[in-house]
Amino acid sequence: MELLKERIRKDGKIKAGNVLKMDSFLNHQMDIALFGEIGKEFRKRFENETITKILTIEASGIGIACIVAQYFNVPVVFAKKNKTKNIAGETYTSRVESFTSGRVYDIIVSKEFLKSEDRVLIIDDFLANGSALQGLVKLVTAAGATLVGAGIVIEKGFQPGGDLIRKSGIRVESLAIVDEMNEETGIIKFR
Amino acid sequence: MELLKERIRKDGKIKAGNVLKMDSFLNHQMDIALFGEIGKEFRKRFENETITKILTIEASGIGIACIVAQYFNVPVVFAKKNKTKNIAGETYTSRVESFTSGRVYDIIVSKEFLKSEDRVLIIDDFLANGSALQGLVKLVTAAGATLVGAGIVIEKGFQPGGDLIRKSGIRVESLAIVDEMNEETGIIKFR
Repeated sequence: MELLKERIRKDGKIKAGNVLKMDSFLNHQMDIALFGEIGKEFRKRFENETITKILTIEASGIGIACIVAQYFNVPVVFAKKNKTKNIAGETYTSRVESFTSGRVYDIIVSKEFLKSEDRVLIIDDFLANGSALQGLVKLVTAAGATLVGAGIVIEKGFQPGGDLIRKSGIRVESLAIVDEMNEETGIIKFR
Repeated sequence: MELLKERIRKDGKIKAGNVLKMDSFLNHQMDIALFGEIGKEFRKRFENETITKILTIEASGIGIACIVAQYFNVPVVFAKKNKTKNIAGETYTSRVESFTSGRVYDIIVSKEFLKSEDRVLIIDDFLANGSALQGLVKLVTAAGATLVGAGIVIEKGFQPGGDLIRKSGIRVESLAIVDEMNEETGIIKFR
């Protein structure tokens, strides 16, 4: 998606430790007009698919998932990272290790909102080592739902997540795949 | 907002400890079409105001804020609850105590995304004791930005947050104010 790649080149910041900072438009401040274009692009890529639900994970996946959902006319469910008073009843759980924070945590979704008849599209902002995406896939599997695929805004192609998950037979559509980035020169190479 | 009140009556669940569970359409599964109607309503209520930015807090405020932002053509910034590798540089910080989880935590926003020239509309899903909203107000004040007001989806009118914040001179627009709810009968009374 050319518009997105241009934006990454313009506003993305490469930080030590393979961190790609997109917080001026993607995951702290959010450019809603750009999210609209992202929604249209995912609709195009999954246009022949029947989808009944979009699944994402808090926090930075939620905004994109909600805007994207408008193009599919389906509800969004977000997996939660912390159990609160407000989640009671039966849940599906899986374990995730965050690349960004290094933390290991459980993600949960209420059984009420993920059913065996659902056809699920997973939406997330980043794909790096793939742990969050694999955790979401496990929730879909646990529910006996059909996973149609995953739509990712930015994939770090030099980390193993995307390849691993594609090899397991899951359709992953990433709108921008960064194959190389150089902290010193600031140069980003896309696949 | 009648459509919202009907939905709360139909799908809201009253739980012990004054917890009002809206997770089938508001803060776990999200009804994006309803969020669109919420966006139109906030646009109407703040129609004569110049707004340059919407501020919310992770996680459940993000989805609503993003859909609402489409009606104002402005970016959304969400305050973060946990400091990660991805937030570097200068931040504004304030302290929040969650009614739902009982936790006390800091919320932060990068100084880069909240400027003195901004005219800010705060959007959140719930207002109860008002701690999250007061935390967001402090971030706006710290930035020297102008606070236009706060748009809340559901206010628990029997908890002190809304009245306290209105008395401090802040415009708070709540789309549904629950004045009474009865766990045993399931009856919800709106203001």
